[in-house]
Amino acid sequence: MIERIAILGTGLLGASVGLALRANGYRGKIAGFNRSEEGASTALRIGAIDSVVTDPLAAAREADVTLLCVPIYATLDLMPRLAAMLTPNQLVTDVGSTKREIVTQAARYYNTPNRPAFLPGHPMAGKERGGAEFADANLFRGAVWLFTDDPAWPRSPRGAELAADWRALVASMGARAIDIDPARHDEMVAWVSHLPQFTATALSALLEEEVGDAPELKDVGGRALREMTRLGASPFSMWRDIALTNTEPIERALQAFEQRLAHIRENLRTPALRDEFEQANKFRRET
Amino acid sequence: MIERIAILGTGLLGASVGLALRANGYRGKIAGFNRSEEGASTALRIGAIDSVVTDPLAAAREADVTLLCVPIYATLDLMPRLAAMLTPNQLVTDVGSTKREIVTQAARYYNTPNRPAFLPGHPMAGKERGGAEFADANLFRGAVWLFTDDPAWPRSPRGAELAADWRALVASMGARAIDIDPARHDEMVAWVSHLPQFTATALSALLEEEVGDAPELKDVGGRALREMTRLGASPFSMWRDIALTNTEPIERALQAFEQRLAHIRENLRTPALRDEFEQANKFRRET
Repeated sequence: MIERIAILGTGLLGASVGLALRANGYRGKIAGFNRSEEGASTALRIGAIDSVVTDPLAAAREADVTLLCVPIYATLDLMPRLAAMLTPNQLVTDVGSTKREIVTQAARYYNTPNRPAFLPGHPMAGKERGGAEFADANLFRGAVWLFTDDPAWPRSPRGAELAADWRALVASMGARAIDIDPARHDEMVAWVSHLPQFTATALSALLEEEVGDAPELKDVGGRALREMTRLGASPFSMWRDIALTNTEPIERALQAFEQRLAHIRENLRTPALRDEFEQANKFRRET
Repeated sequence: MIERIAILGTGLLGASVGLALRANGYRGKIAGFNRSEEGASTALRIGAIDSVVTDPLAAAREADVTLLCVPIYATLDLMPRLAAMLTPNQLVTDVGSTKREIVTQAARYYNTPNRPAFLPGHPMAGKERGGAEFADANLFRGAVWLFTDDPAWPRSPRGAELAADWRALVASMGARAIDIDPARHDEMVAWVSHLPQFTATALSALLEEEVGDAPELKDVGGRALREMTRLGASPFSMWRDIALTNTEPIERALQAFEQRLAHIRENLRTPALRDEFEQANKFRRET
């Protein structure tokens, strides 16, 4: 049983996990750390955590499970430091959006009988605006929670048990776990998550340049324009680490997309345009 | 006063206009024509029209105002045929998504003291799926309804009056009228409407190819992916005419967008990525 959880990073995701755990029957303790004091006190106020801690390492030392909800490079930086001070009876897990580098660190510093356990996770949920004030107990309901776990990792019995218990808590929040190879994970999220984000960023940035000085023209775009640019509000702070740790798959996806747009541009007057619409219709019918 | 309206094309837009007129106090008659009998009978059943007519020209002959809610080429084809049989005491208006070619026809066949009046209109509202079954009395509430009217057109007094009355009905549906030059209209919708549509089509078509055979991976994209591909369901039948009547502005917008994406792709590891996110954030703050 997991009795104490430390959430390091009580932003949107961290605070939503805290709220979701509480809303779905978790009765243990939840300590929270956040770089900004305001974020931590918001998380405390809304009931996402029971206590605020000012030292992330000390918080992790007291916890059965430490959940890292910080940007990827902060996760990569914390991983060896936590491994050095935790016991084989403790689990660290994370929510990082790219997994190859995190899995490399996990294999290097965790997951032997004498080391703490690390379970690499990635909930496919979020909002375009961060911060505990947007936290939502239902954020993970119906969402996929990816794990890039390696069944061959020789974890301690307690570490293996905590990993299974964490998966049970994830299920209790309403998420559906899918296990996937880390390289395949990073390739796949480049298509279904990173490409849509960079598309929305490029579209929003371009339109800011083209019609930014004519706000009435934005109204003209209506719901379609709002939807296609909503992700334009996403913070660079989070996406920088994603771009840096998944560069090649994102490059490939963007280049394929540029070619697809050029193909449409060159065929605005030809029957090939029909094929593009039919292919797109097909994607939506299946989604 | 407008007492009789003929809606030619009782699809999503036409039927929504009928419902919106009724919901907001219009008490005159509304006749409806639709190429497919089923679409007309659906419009009749939901109360968008009072009667189904099988001859669009005969329906227009009986109406004070004829509203063309058909694809652009069908509008361009109907315009001279209607002009030949209507009187200066009748108005034709439309909902076409591009306006230069329609305005050219209007100047050629309408809007003199001895000819019927034509008011070129374009409500910025829609759904990704067409058909009277998706019609909505509130579709135009809060939306912009563009007019590319020319104040210099020497309309008959009755024609001018009907145009003013139609604008009042548009306002009654909750839409906000904006007058704009037709060339500027077509340039602007290329950015805020056509570019987002072709972006969603290209993204959906590409993802169908890349992950179409792995439906569980689409779940992974979550809300963000669903939003960025929703317009992928849009029908080619409508967009073909838009692509053909607004080719150059759409080509320019697509090419600029391809360049923007390439810029992001080439700067995934540089500080220029921050600038793109900040520019995108700015667009969303103002929207």
